[in-house]
Amino acid sequence: MTDVVALLRDAVGDAVSTEPAALEAMRGDKSGQRSAAAPLALVTARTVSDVQAVLRLANEHGVAVVPRGSGTGLTGGALAGAGELVLSTAAMTRILEIDEADQVAVVEPGILNADLNRALEPHGLRWAPDPASREISSVGGNIATNAGGLLCAKYGVTREAVLGLDVVLADGTLMRLGHRTVKGVTGLDLTALMIGSEGTLGVIVGATLKLTPLPTGPVATIGATFPTVEDAAAASAAITAARIRPAAMELIDPVALAAILRHLALPDRAPGTAHLLVQTDGEAAEAEARAALTIITGLGGIAELTTDPHEGERMLAVRRAMHPAMEALGQVLIEDVAVPRSQLPAMFAAIRRIGERHGILIPTVAHAGDGNLHPNLVCDGDEVPDVIWTAAGELFEAALALGGTLTGEHGIGTLKRRWLADELGDAQVMLQRRIKEAFDPRGIMNPGKVF
Amino acid sequence: MTDVVALLRDAVGDAVSTEPAALEAMRGDKSGQRSAAAPLALVTARTVSDVQAVLRLANEHGVAVVPRGSGTGLTGGALAGAGELVLSTAAMTRILEIDEADQVAVVEPGILNADLNRALEPHGLRWAPDPASREISSVGGNIATNAGGLLCAKYGVTREAVLGLDVVLADGTLMRLGHRTVKGVTGLDLTALMIGSEGTLGVIVGATLKLTPLPTGPVATIGATFPTVEDAAAASAAITAARIRPAAMELIDPVALAAILRHLALPDRAPGTAHLLVQTDGEAAEAEARAALTIITGLGGIAELTTDPHEGERMLAVRRAMHPAMEALGQVLIEDVAVPRSQLPAMFAAIRRIGERHGILIPTVAHAGDGNLHPNLVCDGDEVPDVIWTAAGELFEAALALGGTLTGEHGIGTLKRRWLADELGDAQVMLQRRIKEAFDPRGIMNPGKVF
Repeated sequence: MTDVVALLRDAVGDAVSTEPAALEAMRGDKSGQRSAAAPLALVTARTVSDVQAVLRLANEHGVAVVPRGSGTGLTGGALAGAGELVLSTAAMTRILEIDEADQVAVVEPGILNADLNRALEPHGLRWAPDPASREISSVGGNIATNAGGLLCAKYGVTREAVLGLDVVLADGTLMRLGHRTVKGVTGLDLTALMIGSEGTLGVIVGATLKLTPLPTGPVATIGATFPTVEDAAAASAAITAARIRPAAMELIDPVALAAILRHLALPDRAPGTAHLLVQTDGEAAEAEARAALTIITGLGGIAELTTDPHEGERMLAVRRAMHPAMEALGQVLIEDVAVPRSQLPAMFAAIRRIGERHGILIPTVAHAGDGNLHPNLVCDGDEVPDVIWTAAGELFEAALALGGTLTGEHGIGTLKRRWLADELGDAQVMLQRRIKEAFDPRGIMNPGKVF
Repeated sequence: MTDVVALLRDAVGDAVSTEPAALEAMRGDKSGQRSAAAPLALVTARTVSDVQAVLRLANEHGVAVVPRGSGTGLTGGALAGAGELVLSTAAMTRILEIDEADQVAVVEPGILNADLNRALEPHGLRWAPDPASREISSVGGNIATNAGGLLCAKYGVTREAVLGLDVVLADGTLMRLGHRTVKGVTGLDLTALMIGSEGTLGVIVGATLKLTPLPTGPVATIGATFPTVEDAAAASAAITAARIRPAAMELIDPVALAAILRHLALPDRAPGTAHLLVQTDGEAAEAEARAALTIITGLGGIAELTTDPHEGERMLAVRRAMHPAMEALGQVLIEDVAVPRSQLPAMFAAIRRIGERHGILIPTVAHAGDGNLHPNLVCDGDEVPDVIWTAAGELFEAALALGGTLTGEHGIGTLKRRWLADELGDAQVMLQRRIKEAFDPRGIMNPGKVF
């Protein structure tokens, strides 16, 4: 049998590691799941030609390749198992260009979201995607999952903030997709197809990003509590229906709120209390916030409004503490359904019923401006017990029945594969597989993920 | 030989026409080009199942199918020739649903853009894509070309305003792509892949559209003249670079301006005068317009500013008269290159050089906020002479050399096929063909277009 690792070392030298601790780390990601065994090797690419060399070899020898960014995925999309190669772009972190006039940045995929935005800030620009994980997640990972975040309702998802991609295909071919212009329709939109493809079509080695001016006007923030989560959800749906477009609108259900307050050592609220955060920006920020406040109080909310940006950021910190608060609870399966915004109250009611039926806690936060909910299924021990999978399945069914989707922003990975055809139908799954084959005829790219 | 027309009549009855005048009309579109001969038949589908029946038959018998909306394409994407079937969705014009709370509409593809927006207006909503052809172009056609228009710099292109699509594939399979939620990342993004696919992958039979609130705040409009087109282009680039985001920013070059003024029977301007229109909206409209005005006058422009919306619409009417003014000049090949916004002055200079070299007039308008230019190559007679094709090729070369693209919003169709590989490279063209084969293994969908 060919010694692929030796061939890799010939090709890319000490970019290859077979150090056991390094390989062990490649079994997992932030989903809490792990593969059954460690992979064959980890290649930490430094250049595009490293990536090309690895893929040429892997394709020739039929070795599976798992692309990996910073490993913060929540659906097991980067788990690597026996006999597989991990191809990491985490060390490719350069900003190649910031063009202020055209509001474009060209970057390598490994740069972290927060690092990029810190570099853009002196230019008065930002890259709008703002995942809650921004301090630890990479731009390439955002693109591979079409990540969302807190600002999407007003500022869009990743797909709307990427103009072009440099991609290495399974056979090592480097391809430049998209363009540097803000409009362009030459041929099929392969840039959009790559965004959210979770490593199944190729490896993203560079990105031309569409930047937007940093909002400079006033910011207004509302923190509101409601006696029940359905009341809070009704208020958020009413704010959307009233054509108010907050920069962020985050809903925290009672179970999540209690856990966060405990984690931050803040005083408890009355049982059942739900929390709604609304932030508006731009010239109309205060007027929009006042209109939202009227809706909130009219629907039974108790609210405070601030136009002080620091006070507003402090209020949002409650939401940003969700993930660490959940980690403190133990093993958590973080789900990611989305429903039409008017269906948020019905989805929260369904989550409560499912939790009660199975006797489990499902703390839930929602990007309420998008109808995107993150129910967190809490369990003990390393293995996810069957009851959690059953509850997850019921969540997906409920979301689909309300006109929703399995995943608003995290992707399918390994965790949601079994429900893929429930949403897409068998014919579409087959078509998607044929498209994957057009990119990757030998099936080496991230096998067992998504499909 | 099988009589396909007879089989079609069995399947869809009087939806089939072989009336010579009807078939003759199918040879052309708004590109001014015509196919060499009339097609076999025209099917005007009334329902999704009509579309399915036609495609099943065509696929079985290997007959080429040319999907057609309202026939306003500018690149020959809907030209139908000998032995081909035209499958028109122009009669499928129903609005199936307008959901005010979720800001979603579900429509059939044949509805005209302006008709849809007239129906949405009482709900305080609109579908943002705003092609200059809105009174005659269909929503399905917008989607098939990923059309842009006047408002893209601020409000996005068609891709950003479509949540889901119902598509009939070559073999008659009906597939529901995308979702009704504003976020969703289940599997590969086939909705985005269909948008701009110019009828080569399937027939769009329904669309779930993302609506946006009609802007209700103030509107400010600036009309400015500059002594040269490069000055006007420099001003538009400076406005973008200053982080001002107009709803529309339209640049009209001296040759185009003279033709429009003549067409509208308005007084001439000094030779060489270029016209820049800037419209801002939202709460900051007037402040943004004043900032733009300062830039304009600082760069040598003579400008007037109005905050009266009707006066603003009257000023924009000059731009909207471009297409009829060009039609009055005779045969026109309308090009559609896009460049990074900072390169607008260089692209205008290149257009002027190309026009002078070949002794031809190239009146040009630009959606300056997007860097998208429409050089109009004027010629006599029905056939496009070689000199025009040569000049067009030089325009494309110049745009690509400036980091631009062949087509910002019109598509490739038949007119720009020969330059496709210049932009995409041979490897990407081959990959795109393989993707087409995944949708359409027998190659019946709009053959000879794009690829």
